[in-house]
Amino acid sequence: MKRVGILGAGGFTGQMLLRLLSHHPEISVVFISSSEYAGKSLADALPALDSIQYKGLSFSMHPDSIENFPDADLYFLATPDSVSLTWAPQLVERGYKVIDISGAFRIQDAAVFEKAYKLKHNAPEALLQAAYGIPEINRNRIASASLVANPGCYASAALLSLYPLSAFPPETFGMPVLDGKSGTSGAGGRTEKEALPFSGVYENFRAYKVQGHQHEPEIRQEFASFMGNPAASLRFTPHLIPMYQGILMTAYIPVASPENFSIEKLRKSADDFAHRELFVRHYNDPNEIETRKVRLTNFADISYHYDSEHHLLIAVSAIDNLMKGAAGVAVQNLNILFGFPEEMALL
Amino acid sequence: MKRVGILGAGGFTGQMLLRLLSHHPEISVVFISSSEYAGKSLADALPALDSIQYKGLSFSMHPDSIENFPDADLYFLATPDSVSLTWAPQLVERGYKVIDISGAFRIQDAAVFEKAYKLKHNAPEALLQAAYGIPEINRNRIASASLVANPGCYASAALLSLYPLSAFPPETFGMPVLDGKSGTSGAGGRTEKEALPFSGVYENFRAYKVQGHQHEPEIRQEFASFMGNPAASLRFTPHLIPMYQGILMTAYIPVASPENFSIEKLRKSADDFAHRELFVRHYNDPNEIETRKVRLTNFADISYHYDSEHHLLIAVSAIDNLMKGAAGVAVQNLNILFGFPEEMALL
Amino acid sequence: MKRVGILGAGGFTGQMLLRLLSHHPEISVVFISSSEYAGKSLADALPALDSIQYKGLSFSMHPDSIENFPDADLYFLATPDSVSLTWAPQLVERGYKVIDISGAFRIQDAAVFEKAYKLKHNAPEALLQAAYGIPEINRNRIASASLVANPGCYASAALLSLYPLSAFPPETFGMPVLDGKSGTSGAGGRTEKEALPFSGVYENFRAYKVQGHQHEPEIRQEFASFMGNPAASLRFTPHLIPMYQGILMTAYIPVASPENFSIEKLRKSADDFAHRELFVRHYNDPNEIETRKVRLTNFADISYHYDSEHHLLIAVSAIDNLMKGAAGVAVQNLNILFGFPEEMALL
Amino acid sequence: MKRVGILGAGGFTGQMLLRLLSHHPEISVVFISSSEYAGKSLADALPALDSIQYKGLSFSMHPDSIENFPDADLYFLATPDSVSLTWAPQLVERGYKVIDISGAFRIQDAAVFEKAYKLKHNAPEALLQAAYGIPEINRNRIASASLVANPGCYASAALLSLYPLSAFPPETFGMPVLDGKSGTSGAGGRTEKEALPFSGVYENFRAYKVQGHQHEPEIRQEFASFMGNPAASLRFTPHLIPMYQGILMTAYIPVASPENFSIEKLRKSADDFAHRELFVRHYNDPNEIETRKVRLTNFADISYHYDSEHHLLIAVSAIDNLMKGAAGVAVQNLNILFGFPEEMALL
Repeated sequence: MKRVGILGAGGFTGQMLLRLLSHHPEISVVFISSSEYAGKSLADALPALDSIQYKGLSFSMHPDSIENFPDADLYFLATPDSVSLTWAPQLVERGYKVIDISGAFRIQDAAVFEKAYKLKHNAPEALLQAAYGIPEINRNRIASASLVANPGCYASAALLSLYPLSAFPPETFGMPVLDGKSGTSGAGGRTEKEALPFSGVYENFRAYKVQGHQHEPEIRQEFASFMGNPAASLRFTPHLIPMYQGILMTAYIPVASPENFSIEKLRKSADDFAHRELFVRHYNDPNEIETRKVRLTNFADISYHYDSEHHLLIAVSAIDNLMKGAAGVAVQNLNILFGFPEEMALL
Repeated sequence: MKRVGILGAGGFTGQMLLRLLSHHPEISVVFISSSEYAGKSLADALPALDSIQYKGLSFSMHPDSIENFPDADLYFLATPDSVSLTWAPQLVERGYKVIDISGAFRIQDAAVFEKAYKLKHNAPEALLQAAYGIPEINRNRIASASLVANPGCYASAALLSLYPLSAFPPETFGMPVLDGKSGTSGAGGRTEKEALPFSGVYENFRAYKVQGHQHEPEIRQEFASFMGNPAASLRFTPHLIPMYQGILMTAYIPVASPENFSIEKLRKSADDFAHRELFVRHYNDPNEIETRKVRLTNFADISYHYDSEHHLLIAVSAIDNLMKGAAGVAVQNLNILFGFPEEMALL
Repeated sequence: MKRVGILGAGGFTGQMLLRLLSHHPEISVVFISSSEYAGKSLADALPALDSIQYKGLSFSMHPDSIENFPDADLYFLATPDSVSLTWAPQLVERGYKVIDISGAFRIQDAAVFEKAYKLKHNAPEALLQAAYGIPEINRNRIASASLVANPGCYASAALLSLYPLSAFPPETFGMPVLDGKSGTSGAGGRTEKEALPFSGVYENFRAYKVQGHQHEPEIRQEFASFMGNPAASLRFTPHLIPMYQGILMTAYIPVASPENFSIEKLRKSADDFAHRELFVRHYNDPNEIETRKVRLTNFADISYHYDSEHHLLIAVSAIDNLMKGAAGVAVQNLNILFGFPEEMALL
Repeated sequence: MKRVGILGAGGFTGQMLLRLLSHHPEISVVFISSSEYAGKSLADALPALDSIQYKGLSFSMHPDSIENFPDADLYFLATPDSVSLTWAPQLVERGYKVIDISGAFRIQDAAVFEKAYKLKHNAPEALLQAAYGIPEINRNRIASASLVANPGCYASAALLSLYPLSAFPPETFGMPVLDGKSGTSGAGGRTEKEALPFSGVYENFRAYKVQGHQHEPEIRQEFASFMGNPAASLRFTPHLIPMYQGILMTAYIPVASPENFSIEKLRKSADDFAHRELFVRHYNDPNEIETRKVRLTNFADISYHYDSEHHLLIAVSAIDNLMKGAAGVAVQNLNILFGFPEEMALL
């Protein structure tokens, strides 16, 4: 049994982590912190998560010094970026593995991070050691890392559907334009306290952060990396769906050299990807991609349509933002770090 | 008082028409038909529309011959395309004005219509007489027409936000990619009977008709027309929002010659448009565009962001699909046809 | 034209009042206040209410002294109880008519008010002059009043369905138990700022104020009055529906003397009531009562089932809490006060 | 490993059963049937349930004769009443255990069944052998039964909150009036095909089956049984919530002999019940009962308020209708039948 602590366990992602880990046969949750629920038992604070495994487990305050972190094999940080920046390097130094669910360690270039997050990066050396945590793309680095930067939810939805494009030379494609849509648990505050008001979300739809979303640089960085084109760029715009859970991503990718492209070859690449990867599913018809088909699962569903008249490739993908977009992939990363079967507690 | 009949008055659009016309001081509704509600009084069939103005009004069956249409000054056809194809020309010939809310008379090229609608167009001469019914773009033709082709809801959302681009030479822009999102009243069946099941819509999000939506050709036709570039094309993909009413359109437009473009000039063009047009509102910040701000109104809200790094223009717009996207613009067209103030019963 | 001011015009009820009055041919809105929107034009603050009638109208701060209230014929107070307590008597003294939408003047017994509202009643003499504002029950008093206490939303839903019971001697019935359900606009805070979080309402259902809701005493008071039994009591428990607008009330009334009761006689009483009252509709089948049938209308729909095995009468009723439960009845009361047709701007 | 078959595995309850059993360490699902999905693999038909455990599992047609049922240790019948009536007795005779999720074997008196279900009961002898499947009330009978009648969802919500009343003599209470509210998965059709239309549920609230719901007799039967008063009766009225999953029950119970009753004693009884029963939780404050606190869990949350002025006891309870109201309790019953820990795969 590996001992695990969770900082920020009371937020939407923390709660989903607790739900998943309650089924994990190799994990014992030894510590949970939450500023909102500190002092309450898990059963009292979050009655829907009450379970035998967690009998006696109560929320603590966030520790105020590294000495006050209970001994553990791994810490999940489901905390704001600035909190993760503080603790992740110290926890790693102390010999614990860390899976950071914030955005603090996803972007390798500290200057890009600082521009996107409007936050000084005070641990640039930890940045360099962090493995970007999409297992389907970066499994080997994750396996040997001490610090895993769990990917952004929009980033997972985008990158897993873009990855099969790497079967083509990078110059095949123009700049992808990504139109993302998320339920409130992926788009609003991280906790109910910070949450969006009912009357502003229900029976309403809108774009947000049109001028630029902080997940865009990490999508760009990884896309450029697997396409083998450091100059590759893209544009991402998020929207808020009047529902709780789920992300749908519609990516529009101009095909710059149609003579090099065929939809059959792309589908073959996607089929291979899905065949190789337990949590990737490839559909031939993009109309079949729906958030409810991935709800409460760790799957990423991907599909493609090629509009040959306009040389435009349309990629549609869906994930559950709290699962494959946050807690699910975090558990998948934990399984990799500890050498457990990757699907443990997930499938 | 002008006498008005409505074919298909029991569907979502027909109901909204009835709601609007109940406040119209110059209109008397003399005939309503519905296959679902035939034989029932309006008050019994649709209790939310019960009103003094409609006392005694009952739904009839659709007439089976042109002789059985009661005398009127204007007919709204809120009917399937094939029904509109049958009756619109005969009603016009009889001297009635017709506002057709189906897609039957929007596309001037019958071959394009037949491909998009998978339906033989048996009234191509009526096609040529029909005026495409977006008043802000085509007011003069509407005013003198006998047959108005009320625009598609997605088309109105798209075209009203693209129109200010006509301040630039057409070669300024590459091909727009339109990502549309609609509530169920604009995306599902036209009536509750045909409607989508609760468990398939609620807490779910998906794209549909990714291979091509029948509104795309009419958007393309009008866009090409006002840009003065017959070859101009575009791509449109719709999505279904788990809510009832409202459309948000996000348009991505590559700026092909950045040296000819400035966001200030576009905003000036949009400001002028909004200043001139009672039902167009221009916001500087696209994050402020929300479907609830246009709910139950005839407004189209438009806004722009220019990503100068990627030479990408993003246009966000919102309408109420049942109002500016259907019944509202239909009443606006009626007001134009009869010379009433354009905002009568709408503002 | 009568000149009208609205205090607290930015809340859910205030917004609905503005929507209704924009269609009222005899009313000019001369003043609106809102602590949230003070200084903003109505069009900027609430774009869905933008209209020609309100061009130039801007939100002010609440006046800080009676001298600073602009001259008007009538004031709506859509304000917290304590604010209404302060201004209503002073406005009346100044010769203005007042329709108070708070709970401040509904309960004739100040001690009962103070217990229910946990608030000292500092205007008990105004209490005695106030007319309880359900027109269908209290029209004559309203017509001659200076101060109308607009009824609570739950109270309207309950009392309009209980009123037909007055055709029987009071001893016919035992104590009614009222189970009320409301959308968030009737149950949460009065404004979006105070509103319930999306994640706490969506896909959730709960009772609230089970220990006692402040509308219970006014329902009891009026029920006792029209039943002619000062000792008559009842019990009311509210619930929160995950939607925005609408109230459904299910009332369980033991029939104490079945020999005096017949469902036919009750239905006759309800039919007569509905025949006499424009805004009351009586259905024979309670399964037909739905909040959407009254949505955006001023109707109260009522229906009854008698379980003769258990001598239990079940009354089901529905209103739109923002219309018949607040702004709609407020406009109806205004029409009565000024001698306009009662349905003006409502039907 | 016990082998389990599920008839009607494609409906809402069948899907939840599959979700739960995928975590059950002692169960192997060997057969699933569905008229809608016959011939499809589970992964294709219901992508959200795709899992390693179910690799290779496909939906069959319902068997047309008892010989065609694959060998198994237990069958779940998540089928219409008439289908369960046909197969349950034959499966039992063949030596299989059966958990019937329909209403076919819940009511011991065939005449009462036939009146409530408008269906001839052609297996009255099986009726007598069937154990009513609320473990907290009837565990011993379940343990030794071959046929378990899984309880109705409303019935579980009602009975688990009424059970602590059995600490008092039956004459303490008058007739309970139960006001139930359910999401669509508990109230509409059993499958998406039969489901309610979005536009009829969303932003709407209504009562249904006000004249009598088929769960009422089973609630009455069990209530009379544990109260030790064969004449005890009650009245139940259901309502439809615009959400998917969850039931809230508000029970109003007149206290006939207040001198025999105390809320403290009732709370003690409820505390004891909750202490004894893993899946019952007792709250002191009924305002804390919410469907989301039991969402995706097998808990029943119960709470009480006593209005001493009116001698009225109010019991509020919540369950997840698909879990404690259907699939969860079915798995709990399976665990009992096979002697597994009762919480296996549930907590």
